[in-house]
Amino acid sequence: MDELVSVREQVQAALAAYLAEARSHLTTIGSQLAPVCDGLEEFILDGGKRLRPLFAYAGHVAAGKAVGPNEIKAFASLEFLQACALIHDDLMDASDTRRGKPAMHRRFENLHQEQALAGLSEQFGAAAAILLGDLALVQSDHMLHTSGISSDQLLDALGVHDEMRIELMAGQYLDVREAGEKSYNVERSLRIARFKSGKYSIERPLHLGAAIAERDASVRQPLMWRLSEYGLPLGEAFQLRDDLLGIFGDPVVTGKPAGDDLREGKRTVLMAMAMERTTDAGRAELTDNLGKADLSLETIEELRAIILESGAVESVEGLIEKLTFDALSASRSREIAPDAHELLAALAASATARKS
Amino acid sequence: MDELVSVREQVQAALAAYLAEARSHLTTIGSQLAPVCDGLEEFILDGGKRLRPLFAYAGHVAAGKAVGPNEIKAFASLEFLQACALIHDDLMDASDTRRGKPAMHRRFENLHQEQALAGLSEQFGAAAAILLGDLALVQSDHMLHTSGISSDQLLDALGVHDEMRIELMAGQYLDVREAGEKSYNVERSLRIARFKSGKYSIERPLHLGAAIAERDASVRQPLMWRLSEYGLPLGEAFQLRDDLLGIFGDPVVTGKPAGDDLREGKRTVLMAMAMERTTDAGRAELTDNLGKADLSLETIEELRAIILESGAVESVEGLIEKLTFDALSASRSREIAPDAHELLAALAASATARKS
Repeated sequence: MDELVSVREQVQAALAAYLAEARSHLTTIGSQLAPVCDGLEEFILDGGKRLRPLFAYAGHVAAGKAVGPNEIKAFASLEFLQACALIHDDLMDASDTRRGKPAMHRRFENLHQEQALAGLSEQFGAAAAILLGDLALVQSDHMLHTSGISSDQLLDALGVHDEMRIELMAGQYLDVREAGEKSYNVERSLRIARFKSGKYSIERPLHLGAAIAERDASVRQPLMWRLSEYGLPLGEAFQLRDDLLGIFGDPVVTGKPAGDDLREGKRTVLMAMAMERTTDAGRAELTDNLGKADLSLETIEELRAIILESGAVESVEGLIEKLTFDALSASRSREIAPDAHELLAALAASATARKS
Repeated sequence: MDELVSVREQVQAALAAYLAEARSHLTTIGSQLAPVCDGLEEFILDGGKRLRPLFAYAGHVAAGKAVGPNEIKAFASLEFLQACALIHDDLMDASDTRRGKPAMHRRFENLHQEQALAGLSEQFGAAAAILLGDLALVQSDHMLHTSGISSDQLLDALGVHDEMRIELMAGQYLDVREAGEKSYNVERSLRIARFKSGKYSIERPLHLGAAIAERDASVRQPLMWRLSEYGLPLGEAFQLRDDLLGIFGDPVVTGKPAGDDLREGKRTVLMAMAMERTTDAGRAELTDNLGKADLSLETIEELRAIILESGAVESVEGLIEKLTFDALSASRSREIAPDAHELLAALAASATARKS
């Protein structure tokens, strides 16, 4: 869809402009900050589907309002928040790669080694990843605040924005905590998907766009509800697609090693369903192997076969289809401006039918 | 000073009220978040000198304006930002304790063990500390935004607040990066002290208080400059006192192990001066031992003696005295409301003459 391509380009340009300004500020504080600027620039400019800014854009259009360059800048700020989440996530999961390149903690670990700095490379890499994530989180705020949207728009945005970020951090903790459970559980994993993805990735960005577009509460509130009816099921479908890609995705396209979620022992809805439905032998084999960092490709193939045979993949695909259908139905309601219908449908497709 | 005691109590009450609301929100997202609430509550309510809220308060008084409960709440939010910085700092430094209790990553590592959760306790502890820090950072924002100060006050606060947080993260990175240098350097360490402590802990909180108090730029700008003339030298003096306490402080009062900075090999101004001025034998002994996690108390005593004999302690005490004198001179200028003079003097004393 041409509109999505164009918005993506505008988001990219806004990010590049902000990063250039940030570089000149940070390197004035200290020239040693240049590698921090390099790291964030590559991370933020090189990749990503820009889904969150696109959903914020769609929320704005759904309110029947035109989007200008200031709004684009405000929406683009969500990419810095996402950068924080991913950089910290990779460190917590001890993931080596992101989008086919070294994860941020590995990048700085390598820099430490190449420059033969004093101290432990691994500790330096971890510290740098923590601080780059923190910096990105603060920059997301700063970019939103200095986007040039009006004071009224900004004040309206702050409430949704804070809510979104609290839900993100809470959802991340629940996800980490779930990995400590002895058993897999479909209900709990769905709940985590709702907070981590449904709300953070889709519903709240839509709300942010709508909050910036429309001040009249009697118009805004019904619009927000409809956007939730679209965003929450779609967000769950988005996460379920992620679950499938985490086990069956093509490493060339995902930029993550094959079967990464198996090695991490991730507590996804897909895995919880497979555990529920497989045979006793299948369950034993899964339990023995999930979470082992050194799984061979052969074992990964065996585990994939068990998951497929359990019927879990089929169920998850069915669930994605149903949730997407629900989302699309809500998107065609009269509270949502007609201009947004096609856009929301295209976004639903790119969130649920993607390969990476 | 009674005024400081009273403000501290009001800050404490504002933090307790915010944390109670946050608990009811977070535990609705998931009951598993209760330990997160416990951890942040104990961390934030149990300790700290509340220096940053107090400096913000002083900045407000310096503008000649009365401070109400909404402003107190806005200033108290800085304690959440500080909680983020300390929780992440302890993880990056692999410090076991904070204020005599287990550091946050150790607390969650212990929780993982006690509850016999699946997975690695250390990894869980680190992940929890990253996420609790992130959550505290977002909550600091949320508490500021919902403090009840007027829209104009809030919009004026955001610029200073963002600047402060970017400087904090940049200063933290420079500090971590400095540990990678092969040699100690007084100039570089002073620069880091300026960003980590001068600006973040003192100058910017003062500016935040002043920005919320005074909209008229022709009054505000000269006031800001004076507050910088007070805050920057005082902030450096504050950090230099920290350097001394990190090596000579009483563990019972600091809540940190004896000679902690020696075990960490921290690149402080004090250590850089000692390295410059000691004998060749002293330098060799310091170089051999700094940064070793398992230093005995005997070796710590030897290293302390070398540092004392080098004259570095005397120099640092002299520098603290001079910087504090400069700060106090600036505080008595006519741009600063007379009501603030005694307050700024009392705060200067508590920042530089403290034992913990």
